[in-house]
Amino acid sequence: MTNATQLPGAGQPIVAPPGLEGVVAAETSIGDVRGEEGFFHYRGYNATELARLCSFEQVWHLIIEGELPDPDRTREFRQETARLRTLPEQVAKLLPEIASVEPFAPLEALRTAVSLTASVIGLKPVLDIPAEELRSQAIRVSALVPVILMGLYRAHQGLEPVPADPELGYAASYLQLLTGEPPNEAHARAVEKYLILTMDHGFNASTFTARVITSTGADLGSALVGAIGALSGPLHGGAPSRALQTLDEIGERSRAYDYLHQKVESGERLMGFGHRIYKTDDPRSVLLREVALETGGEQARFAEYVEQTALEVLHELKPGRRLYTNVEFYAGVVMNSAGIPREMFTPTFASSRTVGWTAAICEQASHNRLIRPLAAYVGPPPPRPLPEGYAYC
Amino acid sequence: MTNATQLPGAGQPIVAPPGLEGVVAAETSIGDVRGEEGFFHYRGYNATELARLCSFEQVWHLIIEGELPDPDRTREFRQETARLRTLPEQVAKLLPEIASVEPFAPLEALRTAVSLTASVIGLKPVLDIPAEELRSQAIRVSALVPVILMGLYRAHQGLEPVPADPELGYAASYLQLLTGEPPNEAHARAVEKYLILTMDHGFNASTFTARVITSTGADLGSALVGAIGALSGPLHGGAPSRALQTLDEIGERSRAYDYLHQKVESGERLMGFGHRIYKTDDPRSVLLREVALETGGEQARFAEYVEQTALEVLHELKPGRRLYTNVEFYAGVVMNSAGIPREMFTPTFASSRTVGWTAAICEQASHNRLIRPLAAYVGPPPPRPLPEGYAYC
Repeated sequence: MTNATQLPGAGQPIVAPPGLEGVVAAETSIGDVRGEEGFFHYRGYNATELARLCSFEQVWHLIIEGELPDPDRTREFRQETARLRTLPEQVAKLLPEIASVEPFAPLEALRTAVSLTASVIGLKPVLDIPAEELRSQAIRVSALVPVILMGLYRAHQGLEPVPADPELGYAASYLQLLTGEPPNEAHARAVEKYLILTMDHGFNASTFTARVITSTGADLGSALVGAIGALSGPLHGGAPSRALQTLDEIGERSRAYDYLHQKVESGERLMGFGHRIYKTDDPRSVLLREVALETGGEQARFAEYVEQTALEVLHELKPGRRLYTNVEFYAGVVMNSAGIPREMFTPTFASSRTVGWTAAICEQASHNRLIRPLAAYVGPPPPRPLPEGYAYC
Repeated sequence: MTNATQLPGAGQPIVAPPGLEGVVAAETSIGDVRGEEGFFHYRGYNATELARLCSFEQVWHLIIEGELPDPDRTREFRQETARLRTLPEQVAKLLPEIASVEPFAPLEALRTAVSLTASVIGLKPVLDIPAEELRSQAIRVSALVPVILMGLYRAHQGLEPVPADPELGYAASYLQLLTGEPPNEAHARAVEKYLILTMDHGFNASTFTARVITSTGADLGSALVGAIGALSGPLHGGAPSRALQTLDEIGERSRAYDYLHQKVESGERLMGFGHRIYKTDDPRSVLLREVALETGGEQARFAEYVEQTALEVLHELKPGRRLYTNVEFYAGVVMNSAGIPREMFTPTFASSRTVGWTAAICEQASHNRLIRPLAAYVGPPPPRPLPEGYAYC
C-alpha cells in the first residue's frame, strides 16, 4: 500500500491485514469464541451449558445486565419483558404496508420497521442518556423484535397480528405470536435452546457494525438497523434454510451418497458444513443435533444420516481437510419441527442476536471512542489538473 | 489487553489503538484528506477546485464513474439522473406516515424511508450483481434521496410533494423540491458548491460503516441505512445549524467579544471551530466563506465578524493552540440564505454524502473481503461454573 494517510500527531499509520483479520479492535466483557477449542461463552459461562440449563430470560439477563439472575429476579425480568411486547400504534398501523412489499423479504422489512420503531419510541443519542436508560431501551427493543417480525409475517399472509400473551416466556411467546396458538412445550423449549445459542458469537460483522455506529453517538436504533443490514449479507448471516434445502434435494437416504459426492467433486459448497472460526465441531451444532433428535422426528434422523454421509464423502474426497457440521445444519431441522416457516429462519436468528447486538451497543457507549480507521489512497496522485478548457456544464 | 482472541492459523493478533486510530483498514481510489496541508481531493482532483468550476453532475460522475465527463456525457448523465427523480408509489404513499412521527427527525425518517425504498426497488446483495448494475442502483438511490428528504419535510409541514422538474440539475432541483418554485440561480449555485464540497471526505465513520456492511455482501440499501445512522451520531455528523445558533445567540456585533470570551473561558466548545483532521484552515470553510459573502448578505458579514472575533479570543485565551474555522461555520449561512430550513441542514449533508457512500459501496464490492476484526475478551475468565443449584426458571 502506498500513500497511507497519516494522522497528524500520530505515529506512522499501521497497515492492517485485509478485512482487519487478526486485528483486535475493541475490548469486550460480553463473551468470546475459542475456535480451536470448539468453545464459546457468554460472560465466562459456557454458552451450550447455558442453553441446556437456562431459560431465554436468564441468559438474556446475563448478557444485558452482566449477571445471572436469581429466581426472584428472573420472575421479575420475565414479567417486565413480557409487558414490553406491545407495539406503538404508529408502528402496528404501518406493518401491513411494510409487509406488502413484494417479494416479501422479512429481514429487510424488519430493518425498516425497527428504524421506524426507534423513531416512534424516541430513542436518544446513546451518549446523551444514562447507561441505565440505554439498557432499558435495549431491553424494550429486544422484546419488540419478535412482535415486529411475526406481525410482518402474519400481515404478509393476510392475517391479523396476534396479541402477545404476557404469561409466556420469550421463546414460547415467539411461537405464539406466529400461530396464535399456545405452543407445544417441547417445541418452545427446543426453539429456546436455539435462541440462546445464537444470542451472541464473539465479534462478528454485524456486532462490529453496531459498535461502529454506536461509536458516533447515534441512537440504539441506528446501530441495530445497521446490524440487521449487515446480517442480511450472504457472507455473514448464514441461512439455516439452505441446509434444509439440501435435505429436500436429497430426498431419501439411498440418494445421499451420490448427491453429496457429486456436489463435493464438482467443487460446490456443502451448505451446513464448515465455519470460518471453528476448526472442530461447532459447539452449537452438537447441541442442536441433540435437540433435533428429540423433537425433529424422521427429518432429524434423516439429517443425521446425511451428516454422517457428508462427513464420509468429505473424508474420502478431501482427506486431511477438517470440515465440520456448522450451526446451520440442525438449526433448520429444529426450527422446522417447531413450525417456524423457512423464510423466518434468518429473522429468528436476528431476533435472538438482538440481545448480543444491544449488549454490544451498551458496552460501546459505556467506554466510547469514535471508531474511525484510515484508508490508503491508491488512485491517481493528486493534485491532478483539470483537463484543459474544462468548464462548468 | 489480555486474552486476545487468536484466529486459528493466523499469527499473533495485532492489538490496534483505540478507535482503530491510525490503522489503515482499506485501500481506496475515491479520494483522500491531507489534514496538515488543508487539502482534500476526489480521485486526485482538488475538491475545492471542483466545487468552484464544476456542476454537481460533473463531480458526481467523477466520483461514481471514476472519470470527469465531457460535455456530451455530462448532458446525458444530467438527463439520466433527472429522470430518476420519481419515487415508487409504495414509498410515496408512506412518506406522510413516516413524517408524522413526532418530534420530526428528518435523518431518522430518511433512514426508514431509504430502507423501505431499497426493498421496494428490489436491491440485490451486492456480490450477486454485476458492478454495472450496482452502479446503476447507486445512482438511482442518490437521485432519490433529495426527493425522499423534501417529500418528508413537506409532508411534515402538511404540504403535498412537489413533482421534480427534469429540466433542473441536482442542486437547483434540490431547492425546487423544497419550495415548489423555480429556484434563484445564485442560490442554486451556492448550494451546489456546498453539496460538491461535502460529497466525500476520506474515511469517516459513516463511510466505514457502509463498507463494513457491504463487506458482508448485503445490498446497497442496508449499507446506506447504516451510513445514515452513523451520520446521525453527534460525534460524526456535525451540525451546521449549531454554528448558526451561535450567531443568533450573539445577535449583534457589540456582543460578540464578551459572548465568545465567556464561552471559551468557561471551557465550552465553540461550535464551528476545530476539526479532528485539519490543523490549518478547513479548505471547505475557505470556499464557503466566499460563497456566503456572495449570497448571504448581512448575516454573512456578521458571521465573518464573529469568526474574526472568535479567532482573536482563541488566540488570546489559548495562545499556541491551532484552532480554525471548520465546514460547519459558513455552511449554515450558505444554506440559510438559500432558504433551506435549519432542520434540513444535516439531511442536506446526507444527501450529497450519499454520492461518497455509494461510491465506497461500489468500491468495496469490487474488491470485497469481509471486514471482521477481533475483540479482546476482558471479562471473568471462562469456563465459569454456574452457581451451585442454579436451575431453569
